[in-house]
Amino acid sequence: MPRPTMRQLARELGISAATVSLALRSDSRITPETTARVKSLAASRGYHADPVVAEGMSRARRHDFYRETIGWFLDVSPQAQPWLGDLFSSAGERGRMLGYQIEFFTVDFEDKAALRRTARMCRARGIRGLLLGPLEHALVDPVLPWGDFSWVTIGQSLVSPALHRVGRDYDKDISFALSRLRAQGWCRPGFVDDNTMHHLMGLPLLRAALVHYHRAEDKMSDAYYTAKLDRPADFARWLKRNRPDSLVLGKSFEERAVELHRLVAHLPQVELSPPDGTVCTQARFVRDYASMGHSAMTLLHRLLADGEKGIPRNEQTIVVSSAWQEPGPAELPG
Amino acid sequence: MPRPTMRQLARELGISAATVSLALRSDSRITPETTARVKSLAASRGYHADPVVAEGMSRARRHDFYRETIGWFLDVSPQAQPWLGDLFSSAGERGRMLGYQIEFFTVDFEDKAALRRTARMCRARGIRGLLLGPLEHALVDPVLPWGDFSWVTIGQSLVSPALHRVGRDYDKDISFALSRLRAQGWCRPGFVDDNTMHHLMGLPLLRAALVHYHRAEDKMSDAYYTAKLDRPADFARWLKRNRPDSLVLGKSFEERAVELHRLVAHLPQVELSPPDGTVCTQARFVRDYASMGHSAMTLLHRLLADGEKGIPRNEQTIVVSSAWQEPGPAELPG
Repeated sequence: MPRPTMRQLARELGISAATVSLALRSDSRITPETTARVKSLAASRGYHADPVVAEGMSRARRHDFYRETIGWFLDVSPQAQPWLGDLFSSAGERGRMLGYQIEFFTVDFEDKAALRRTARMCRARGIRGLLLGPLEHALVDPVLPWGDFSWVTIGQSLVSPALHRVGRDYDKDISFALSRLRAQGWCRPGFVDDNTMHHLMGLPLLRAALVHYHRAEDKMSDAYYTAKLDRPADFARWLKRNRPDSLVLGKSFEERAVELHRLVAHLPQVELSPPDGTVCTQARFVRDYASMGHSAMTLLHRLLADGEKGIPRNEQTIVVSSAWQEPGPAELPG
Repeated sequence: MPRPTMRQLARELGISAATVSLALRSDSRITPETTARVKSLAASRGYHADPVVAEGMSRARRHDFYRETIGWFLDVSPQAQPWLGDLFSSAGERGRMLGYQIEFFTVDFEDKAALRRTARMCRARGIRGLLLGPLEHALVDPVLPWGDFSWVTIGQSLVSPALHRVGRDYDKDISFALSRLRAQGWCRPGFVDDNTMHHLMGLPLLRAALVHYHRAEDKMSDAYYTAKLDRPADFARWLKRNRPDSLVLGKSFEERAVELHRLVAHLPQVELSPPDGTVCTQARFVRDYASMGHSAMTLLHRLLADGEKGIPRNEQTIVVSSAWQEPGPAELPG
C-alpha cells in the first residue's frame, strides 16, 4: 500500500485536512484527543511529512518572505576586496535560495572589547549562524562566544580553534603545478613561499617538497624555503646551495621585492596565488570562489538545521581545487 | 519599499493571484499579453519567487510525494557491510528530506559488459545522480559513462578519475594520533600500513612521517613502512634498523598476521582503522560515517540542482575527522 497523503488520513478520520495538518504539528487549537487519534493513524499508515513541502507551505503561510540573517565576520570590508566578489555573491545567491540574507561585519580581531560587543549585538538581533574569513591576517583563538552560534570558517587564516572549514585544495593545486613543470622537462623544483603567506600554504608546500624528493635520485636537502622579502642575500644563498631548475612559488616577487624577483626571473615557475582579476597574459591558477561560497552557505545551513553550535567534535573540511586557465586571445586595443 | 508579494502584484494589475503565479511560470493557459504585463511589473517591483516556497508548493500540488531515485554503486552489498550502517542511513535520511530515495547496485567493476549494462539501466530508469563507493578494492578508471550522470564518490578507493569526493580526514587523524603518543612521552614513532590498505592511507602516512622527522634531532631515515602480511622477516629487519618507540598503525596485525603482531605487541600504538562496531575496551578512533553520508547526499543534490554532470573541472573534496572514543565503563557480566 502506498503511503497516504494528509487528505486520505482526513477522509478516513472524517475530519478536515487542515485539522490533520495542525494535529500533526501538535497545534494547541486541536484537542489532545484528536491530536492523538491523528498521530496514531498517521504512524500506523506510515505517513511522513515531506519536509520540503512543509517548509515551503509554512513560509507561504507567512506571506512575507522573511529571511533569516547570517552574519559574516571579516577584517577588511567586502568592498575593499573586489577579487572576492564571486565568493560573496555565490554565498549570497545560495543563501537567498535557502531563505537567508547576509550582513557583513568588518571587525578588528585584536580589539577584544569591540569583538565581544559585535558578537553580543548579533545575538541580540537573533543571528544564529556566522561565517568567518577569509582574513588578511592569521588569527589564533579569538575571544568569541563559540557556543552561541553555528560557525563556518573560510580559508586558512583561522589557525585555531578548528571549525568546519571551506577553502582551497592546496595539495591538488601543488601537485598540478608539479605536473606542469615535469611536462616541460623540469624535475628539480624548489618550493618557495614567504612570510606574508606562510600561514596559508607553508605546510602544503613543505609536504609536497618532502614527498617529491623522498625517492628522487637527485636529492635536494632543503627543497622548501620561506623567503623574507627584505633578505635577498639569504635567498641568494639558498638558491646557490640548492640549485633548483624551476619553482613552485606562492606568489611572485615581482612588484613586491625587486631584488628577490631578479634572482629567480630566469627560472620557470608556477605561481599558486597570482593576483586575481587582472588580464590573463599567461597560464595560471584561477581560484574557484563561486564553489567555496556556495559550499560555505550550504554547510552553514545544515548546521543551523541540525542545531549544531560551537566548536565541532569532528570538524568537516571542504576543499576545492583551482582551475588552470590558459591565456585567452589578446584583446584588441581601443 | 519592501519587495511585493504575488498577491500585491495581482491587486495592482486587477487580476487573480493564481493568474500571476501561472504567468510568472510562463504557463500556456495565460495569454502572452498578460504574461508579459505580469513579468514586467514583477521585474520593476523587484519581485523574486522564493524557491523553497515554489518547490514546496509544486510538490504539494502533485499530491503524491514523488521521490527521485539516486543510484549507489558498491562492490559489496550494503547488507554485508553492517559497519557502514550509519553511512547508508544518514545518506538515506538526508535524501528523504531533499526528495530522493536510494537504490543500491552491487556491481563487479572488473566485468565491463555488466558495468555498462547497469549504467544503461540507470539511465533508462531516469536516474540522474550516482554515489560510488566506498569499495573493497582500489579502482582505476572504470568504464563508466561519466557524462551521463552527476557523481559523488565516497572514500579513497576510486583512484581515478578525480570526482567530487567525501571521505575521512586522514591528515587530521594522524596528527591527533601523534599528539596522543607525544603526550605519553613517545617521540620516535614509526608509521606503518600494509598492502591491504596502502591505497587508502599510504600517502597521508608517508607525508606525516616525512614532516615529523624533517626537523627532528633524532632522525629516522625510513619512518614510513608498508608491511607485507606474509613477510615477517622483512618487517623485523625494518624494526631493527629504525627502532621506533611507538607506532601510528593503519590496522592492527592481531588476528591478521600473528608473527607481525608479535614483533610489535610491546610497542604503544594508535590504530587508524580499528574494527568498527565491536565493544570498545581501549581508546580508539570512531569514524564519523553519519556526517559523510549526510555530506555526500547534500553535495549530490547540489550537483543535480545545478545540472553539473561528468568529471568535474574543479573537484570538491569533503573530509571529516574522526572522533576519539575513550572506553566506557566495563559492562557487568550477565
